[in-house]
Amino acid sequence: MTNPVLVEVTRGDVVESRHRGMIAVVDGGGAVAYAVGDIEAAVFPRSACKAIQALPFVESGAADALGFGDREIAFSASSHSGEDGHAELARQMLAKAGRGVDDLECGAHWSFQQKVLIHQARTREKPDALCNNCSGKHSGFICACVHQGIDPKGYSGYDHPLQAEIRAAMEDVTGAPVGRDLCGIDGCNIPTYAVPLKALAQGFAKLATGEGLSPARAKAGRRILSACMAEPWYVAGTKRACTELMSLAPGKIFAKTGAEGVFCAALPEKGLGIALKCEDGTTRAAEAMVAAVLARFIDDAAIAAKLSDMAATKLKNWNGTDVGAVRAVLPN
Amino acid sequence: MTNPVLVEVTRGDVVESRHRGMIAVVDGGGAVAYAVGDIEAAVFPRSACKAIQALPFVESGAADALGFGDREIAFSASSHSGEDGHAELARQMLAKAGRGVDDLECGAHWSFQQKVLIHQARTREKPDALCNNCSGKHSGFICACVHQGIDPKGYSGYDHPLQAEIRAAMEDVTGAPVGRDLCGIDGCNIPTYAVPLKALAQGFAKLATGEGLSPARAKAGRRILSACMAEPWYVAGTKRACTELMSLAPGKIFAKTGAEGVFCAALPEKGLGIALKCEDGTTRAAEAMVAAVLARFIDDAAIAAKLSDMAATKLKNWNGTDVGAVRAVLPN
Repeated sequence: MTNPVLVEVTRGDVVESRHRGMIAVVDGGGAVAYAVGDIEAAVFPRSACKAIQALPFVESGAADALGFGDREIAFSASSHSGEDGHAELARQMLAKAGRGVDDLECGAHWSFQQKVLIHQARTREKPDALCNNCSGKHSGFICACVHQGIDPKGYSGYDHPLQAEIRAAMEDVTGAPVGRDLCGIDGCNIPTYAVPLKALAQGFAKLATGEGLSPARAKAGRRILSACMAEPWYVAGTKRACTELMSLAPGKIFAKTGAEGVFCAALPEKGLGIALKCEDGTTRAAEAMVAAVLARFIDDAAIAAKLSDMAATKLKNWNGTDVGAVRAVLPN
Repeated sequence: MTNPVLVEVTRGDVVESRHRGMIAVVDGGGAVAYAVGDIEAAVFPRSACKAIQALPFVESGAADALGFGDREIAFSASSHSGEDGHAELARQMLAKAGRGVDDLECGAHWSFQQKVLIHQARTREKPDALCNNCSGKHSGFICACVHQGIDPKGYSGYDHPLQAEIRAAMEDVTGAPVGRDLCGIDGCNIPTYAVPLKALAQGFAKLATGEGLSPARAKAGRRILSACMAEPWYVAGTKRACTELMSLAPGKIFAKTGAEGVFCAALPEKGLGIALKCEDGTTRAAEAMVAAVLARFIDDAAIAAKLSDMAATKLKNWNGTDVGAVRAVLPN
């Protein structure tokens, strides 16, 4: 099937570019509340499923044993901007586990955020792995290994025991089988598994409600989502979409972006999970899509209005002149 | 009509993202050599038509009168990276016309290229308008005004005499009417006019061959394309697609990118013009598309092989591991 246009980019009165995609809104039992496009298509969730990948860190008791709270748990499910506070928290988490930057297997990169990059360029010779947007997740991985008595060396590899734990959690939460087929390598070097978009949405509903999960996993899942909603800056960073969405409605919205135009979200009070992908992998479109679909399902008119604003952002040029907009155009 | 998928982004064995688009390859008489997608659709050429926008600068005699050569003419049709040599040439061109940075109406921005941005952050408090990717074009605009005795103040506005000259050149070269309808404001504040993709492709064939243009305009058009092909670093910058495409086959390929996934190109020896747009506005896809279509039409197997390599680039993660590819998949 051809996925419909879900986001238009306008300039003057003309639609200049169009983004297609698919959206699934599903409850914990698998009932579909809203579907657009091919929601059975297998999609790499990339970083949008970090809350699932963080389950071993919390469920194993590592987070508690190391004295971690919401900040560290949120950070273990983050794709952060590499701001100083992010790199510092990664350093602290690793230190608590008796480890350091050299144990990280995520690689290093400059911040994707212009303001942060400028600050980094002025204060660092080059970025280290603590600055990698995935350093929080990887620090959580290493803590989970150390706490369980597993040698963290090679923790990013498919055959490492930690990745087996993560695979089992992915299968349990999404209900979709994952393995070497439909497996890719993510930007931070760990395996990523393509799963049907609908299964991903149901998985986030299950994380939010605990439905269909063991008591321990249900508790860990709720704790991770709650931590992210309580400490959204540690999930992303200054002016980032995830941070702004979760700050808009504390405790009511969980939202997590992933590379290549993916977003996962949950509305815990509604028991709904959301998964979406922009077909062409563009972040601006995924951000407009998630704001629009959250606006449609949240039970709060004031918050819905703010979300609708985020789903139709103005474009300004270098002189500050309004030149167009990025606007979601979701079908009913 | 639904535009076909022209570029696939893979991860492992899975197609992770898909880019749709349209491509027109047309000769100076309007005969279509290759068409994919809706080539009658009106498209904002954005910066891809800078060679047309530079016509008044050359055709008025301003470039000659100020003693400019290939570098300055190429630069007047550029979207550069804001490297030091680019900002310096903009300064020099303005100085020759007795003007300076304060006359530029393009606004200021940090470089879009990470390496250049890091250098700028370490050497500047903030960027000025000379660093704007359009400063070469705007410097050419100001020189064209001064040479013609037109006050450059307000040169970026729709009603300024210079923009009327550019509109006339656009209509003459593309054969498509342009005016206030289908007009948007570009990133650098000047008007941009949506024209059918096919007309844009024919326009670049006419620029390359002179067909259907007055002798003076034909000469100016050929001179602009020749200057760009002779000085490709001044059209874009280090490791930029336009620079690499034109460096690959000196004198045989003209190529110019535009925002929102547009590319215009010409193969002067073949008398062909090319215009394409990625429907969703993504640069990585437009770059793969232009390399693939140039590979198909250029009469040189060795160059075609290099272009085909550019049309299927590997994706590496932060550890340098191959994780996938961006590959053009053009229909026959």
